[in-house]
Amino acid sequence: MRYEITVFCDMRHFMRFSLLATTALTLAMAGFAPLAQADEGMWLPNQTAGIAKELTEAGLKMDPTKLGDFTAAPLNAIVSLGGCSAAFLSPEGLVATNHHCVYGSIQYNSTPAADYLTNGFLAKTLKDELPAAPGTRIFVIEDLRDVTARMNQGLTPALSGQARYAALDTNRKALIAECEAQANRRCDVRAYFGGASYYLQQQLEIKDVRLVYAPAGGVGNFGGETDNWMWPRHTGDWGFYRAYVAPDGSSAAFAPDNVPYKPKAHLKIAKDGVKTGDFVMVAGFPGVTTRLVTAAEARFSFEKSSPLQQKLLSDYSDLIAKVTAGDPDATIKYASIIKGADNYKKKTLGEIAGADAIDLNGRKERQEAAYRDWVKADPARTAAYGTAITNLDGLVAEDQAAQLDSMRTGTVGRGQLLTAARLAYRFAKEREKPDAARESGYQDRDRRQLTERLTSVERRYVPRVDRALFEAALVEYKQASPAGQDPVFLAKLDAIGVDRLYADTRLADTATRLAWLDKTPAEFEASTDPFIQLAVAMYPADMVREQKSKDRTGRTQAARSVYVAGQIAYEASQGRTLYPDANGSLRFTYGHIKGREKDGQIWTPFTTAAGLLAKQTGKGDFNAPANFIAQLKAGDWGSYAAPELGTLPINYLSTVDITNGNSGSSTLNAKGEFVGLAFDGTLDGVISDWSYEASVNRTIHADSRFMLWTMDKVDGAQRLLKEMGVE
Amino acid sequence: MRYEITVFCDMRHFMRFSLLATTALTLAMAGFAPLAQADEGMWLPNQTAGIAKELTEAGLKMDPTKLGDFTAAPLNAIVSLGGCSAAFLSPEGLVATNHHCVYGSIQYNSTPAADYLTNGFLAKTLKDELPAAPGTRIFVIEDLRDVTARMNQGLTPALSGQARYAALDTNRKALIAECEAQANRRCDVRAYFGGASYYLQQQLEIKDVRLVYAPAGGVGNFGGETDNWMWPRHTGDWGFYRAYVAPDGSSAAFAPDNVPYKPKAHLKIAKDGVKTGDFVMVAGFPGVTTRLVTAAEARFSFEKSSPLQQKLLSDYSDLIAKVTAGDPDATIKYASIIKGADNYKKKTLGEIAGADAIDLNGRKERQEAAYRDWVKADPARTAAYGTAITNLDGLVAEDQAAQLDSMRTGTVGRGQLLTAARLAYRFAKEREKPDAARESGYQDRDRRQLTERLTSVERRYVPRVDRALFEAALVEYKQASPAGQDPVFLAKLDAIGVDRLYADTRLADTATRLAWLDKTPAEFEASTDPFIQLAVAMYPADMVREQKSKDRTGRTQAARSVYVAGQIAYEASQGRTLYPDANGSLRFTYGHIKGREKDGQIWTPFTTAAGLLAKQTGKGDFNAPANFIAQLKAGDWGSYAAPELGTLPINYLSTVDITNGNSGSSTLNAKGEFVGLAFDGTLDGVISDWSYEASVNRTIHADSRFMLWTMDKVDGAQRLLKEMGVE
Repeated sequence: MRYEITVFCDMRHFMRFSLLATTALTLAMAGFAPLAQADEGMWLPNQTAGIAKELTEAGLKMDPTKLGDFTAAPLNAIVSLGGCSAAFLSPEGLVATNHHCVYGSIQYNSTPAADYLTNGFLAKTLKDELPAAPGTRIFVIEDLRDVTARMNQGLTPALSGQARYAALDTNRKALIAECEAQANRRCDVRAYFGGASYYLQQQLEIKDVRLVYAPAGGVGNFGGETDNWMWPRHTGDWGFYRAYVAPDGSSAAFAPDNVPYKPKAHLKIAKDGVKTGDFVMVAGFPGVTTRLVTAAEARFSFEKSSPLQQKLLSDYSDLIAKVTAGDPDATIKYASIIKGADNYKKKTLGEIAGADAIDLNGRKERQEAAYRDWVKADPARTAAYGTAITNLDGLVAEDQAAQLDSMRTGTVGRGQLLTAARLAYRFAKEREKPDAARESGYQDRDRRQLTERLTSVERRYVPRVDRALFEAALVEYKQASPAGQDPVFLAKLDAIGVDRLYADTRLADTATRLAWLDKTPAEFEASTDPFIQLAVAMYPADMVREQKSKDRTGRTQAARSVYVAGQIAYEASQGRTLYPDANGSLRFTYGHIKGREKDGQIWTPFTTAAGLLAKQTGKGDFNAPANFIAQLKAGDWGSYAAPELGTLPINYLSTVDITNGNSGSSTLNAKGEFVGLAFDGTLDGVISDWSYEASVNRTIHADSRFMLWTMDKVDGAQRLLKEMGVE
Repeated sequence: MRYEITVFCDMRHFMRFSLLATTALTLAMAGFAPLAQADEGMWLPNQTAGIAKELTEAGLKMDPTKLGDFTAAPLNAIVSLGGCSAAFLSPEGLVATNHHCVYGSIQYNSTPAADYLTNGFLAKTLKDELPAAPGTRIFVIEDLRDVTARMNQGLTPALSGQARYAALDTNRKALIAECEAQANRRCDVRAYFGGASYYLQQQLEIKDVRLVYAPAGGVGNFGGETDNWMWPRHTGDWGFYRAYVAPDGSSAAFAPDNVPYKPKAHLKIAKDGVKTGDFVMVAGFPGVTTRLVTAAEARFSFEKSSPLQQKLLSDYSDLIAKVTAGDPDATIKYASIIKGADNYKKKTLGEIAGADAIDLNGRKERQEAAYRDWVKADPARTAAYGTAITNLDGLVAEDQAAQLDSMRTGTVGRGQLLTAARLAYRFAKEREKPDAARESGYQDRDRRQLTERLTSVERRYVPRVDRALFEAALVEYKQASPAGQDPVFLAKLDAIGVDRLYADTRLADTATRLAWLDKTPAEFEASTDPFIQLAVAMYPADMVREQKSKDRTGRTQAARSVYVAGQIAYEASQGRTLYPDANGSLRFTYGHIKGREKDGQIWTPFTTAAGLLAKQTGKGDFNAPANFIAQLKAGDWGSYAAPELGTLPINYLSTVDITNGNSGSSTLNAKGEFVGLAFDGTLDGVISDWSYEASVNRTIHADSRFMLWTMDKVDGAQRLLKEMGVE
């Protein structure tokens, strides 16, 4: 399943603001511009006008320029959940996304007695809609505008890495502050085309989100880990939220008298379903692709960092499974972490196999050689890009060992209370500075997120489990090279002892934990709470690492923006157009419903009810509920059957170009109408994050007819169907 | 993989001669006549002339009557290994079959130091060819002739069940004795068309069999249990024996100066490989199909006996795996048992799923109702078949509980020494009678097989493992109903105690064990060996069960032969022709190279080198050796590539109609030339043993080009290629 995973979001978030050291982050900041081919491309909305001819030829049956219009559907029906994508499907703020994107909220509301994870959930009336998990937000896209000139103010080639980093950071913060001066807006500024462009993305932040409907786990997650990343597929991967606002229409935190939000537009449910060959498109928020990293970066990732990541995650999920076995409460609390870890692990394995299958190293080395030969062939080009190439190569090589170390030492962040203490202390330290001078993530605007992060610890904290994970992380920490370890931290930990850490801390209490967000550094430094003491001890080394990392990031940005500018020029010289690498901002991708040839088999683009029934065993990952199976066997398809299949379609394949973060994206037909939900790729296609291969890359969608049939014939969700204009 | 498994052969053998109580046996004796459809049918050689038109229309490019000629190729190149099929591929007695059919002989010759199971085996010269596992035989088919009149001598409707059984047994023994009066011939008489016909099958018995060549386990069993019964498939499932005879050309036991046997004919290796749509045929020895059992028999099997069998086998292989873990010697000794059990278990699960998928119960009930309505509609037909229908239904219902009991109590036969003691004691008891009056399996002609069975115990006997299996079997035994248990056996076992059973027995010594084949009943009854004492205690109850079973078998034969005669008449009235159900005798089946449609996918008929490489992980079931992988990657196909694929073909699918026992059958093209080896079906196709479904039934073959390429480019088997006339 393609989604950003809480636990990794947390890791990334933490690294972003205090270590800033991983390849992923560096790459995400940079953004890259690969060359486009048929059905490939994660296009910025403002690029759709420029590819109007291609869109129309591919089958789009609406004005291509409308795809870039933020004042109309489909664009202003698209929303982000932060990690997942979604869209409004009714004038009453009903939001459709994937089951695995609302999983955390189902889990949050589930108890052994009311087990919505297993049985599904349907709110009979508006009043029965349940608050989503704390921190759940709906971000309504309002704009995505070029701010390159503002970001580049004050940048000169003479700046040191650290100064360059600081200048970009200052400019970014100023832009965000201006944008967020508008009430209830969440704004971000990201780099595109390796820092050649910057765009500001503006979103309305909806704070009262409620869970409306999710099918039974045996439908929404039918196939489970066994089928994850696989085809043929039969998963009912949908779930519904609703956006609520204050009675005056403004965004507000949960309140009983809040009312459904009325979006400016919503997607229309297509009257007719799709069939093989049809044009489809997806608008959503793809997270990170790294299609134009250097060959050396790709090689390092596949030969060193991915295998280590793979090992760390295996150990992590194995340990959680072992420690929570037989404890229903702990099992529920850690379910989404384990699910995320397993999913990520499977994806990483798929990437490694995929890299081999498409000869990623050879392919990248050939592409890179062609570009570099082109630079060398001309003195003017050599003058323009030669130094950047040399510098980037040096920077890439510079810190590979440190990256592996920081993956190992970063595992101590799995200790929830330690991470909470470090966040709170950092916040205290940052609050000594003026707001604008503070590190991103620790400004006043970030207080809410910090509060929610510290609150949410209670949802996945079981002391004996946390301790087991922390102790395992310490073993891993000590595998780092001596230079990668922090002797002050280790000495402090030795002095405290792990027993006392867990016995004496009061941070397990949420109110106590939150109170630390208002304390001064001096109060931290005087504390007797062992986790607070540990956080204070870790701070100096964290700061040293962060400064080093910022300097490297600044120098890398300087080199890479020129390097990629050269690539842009080279690709243009070959007559090819470019789109920016995914970076979490809104993109359009289009393609067609299409199968795939494999060795000894062909994947046909649709699965059907009969295939689901053939997989159902009533056990493990293939355990759809009895009433659902009985209805499927009865075969009363109403108007939901696919005429050319003569039965109910379940999932389908398309060539649209998506990645993590696109989960929950509505799939649109040629007229921009809702025809399904993108929810996954296939395991040997995940290598598309590194290099797109048209013969391999496929997206898996839940067919809207499967969803509507289940709502109608199985789950009795007529209230919602009526609201969506169906029937 | 489709093969008869030693452990189950043993069980069946035991039951056949001492209990004779299972459905499988009753059915195997009866034989059935299903209706034929395109590409369906396991034809007797003498039936091929009658379907000459169909064969020619299907694409056969030789005289159809030649397929029934036992004096020429292909027929007299076909051999049986007893459980597997095979064929001569050279004038020097070289025999090709499946890797899994020579597995026991590879295992027999393997040691931790010379691990042929892992590394494969190639005899550099004739002198290096190794003796196959004890008891290995090559049976060269010589004739299959109708002996119905002789079998029916003395049968009258008035006979009791037991008398009828005895008359058929006497006639069968007389026929066999006459046939085996010819030196070195092995003969059998089996029932066809429910006992409406009997054929005598005559085979030359080659006793000196040697292992010539087997690829590495990572090639011959590539995919292992993971891919077993699956498509796409990439298994190099071939292995070679050679038949040796005395210098004068007569069959003889192993002797250093024996020479290669010169078969009357051998198969020619096709110059060109096959492609999609091509006509192919297979000649071999399919074991058992039960396509025309009554609906009640099928329902009982799927609802009661298969689930129990499934449980018994799971427990068995789980326990072996647990007890042999970490002990390389025990692991090797029990490897083929565990492999067989896992394979059978997977097949049983597939049958259960397949029965559901094709609605076996409904299908059989409809077919049966049509037949019975046709009988009822006419007084003459009612007079002819009505009583048989009533009687058969009663007999089928009569003993279902006893069948389940005997499956449970039969598990004690897994104790190798106990089984050996029971066989030896029975042999002593039978030897008190004249040879012709003895029970089949205990005549003088059977001494060699008994000797080899008792000898072979040493290859799979580890006391602590045997004891663990026996103790687990006792728990199962006591789950049988009180009537199904033998109180004399249990009392004796209690008196001895399991400790003493294993501590005091001398049967673990092969010479001691074999000596019992020459002792008198009185010597058994006076023995202090605890396993001998137990065998003596079990004898009376075994005899009572056997007499009951024979009586029921006799009555069932009387009813079923008339019942099936009625079916033959009914099918003929519908214009349909019939072939007999599989019963281990030589059959032809033809079909085409053809893929299959599934939900969300299509199976295309060929897999290729690229698909094998994509599966290779270097671990577990996907661990082909480095030199093989390197050669595959090098892609030097020589003349072995498939022109329309542009690469090396690995496995292919066809519609030929095979079952267990066909493993190792050569696949022939339209001209009767060798183009591959049949080795498996697909899991949802195994239901074809019960009812053939053209859209589902597929056979998997190893492509001859894959075999020849591996022999040529990887294993250096030029000696054999030259001998086969390749190059």
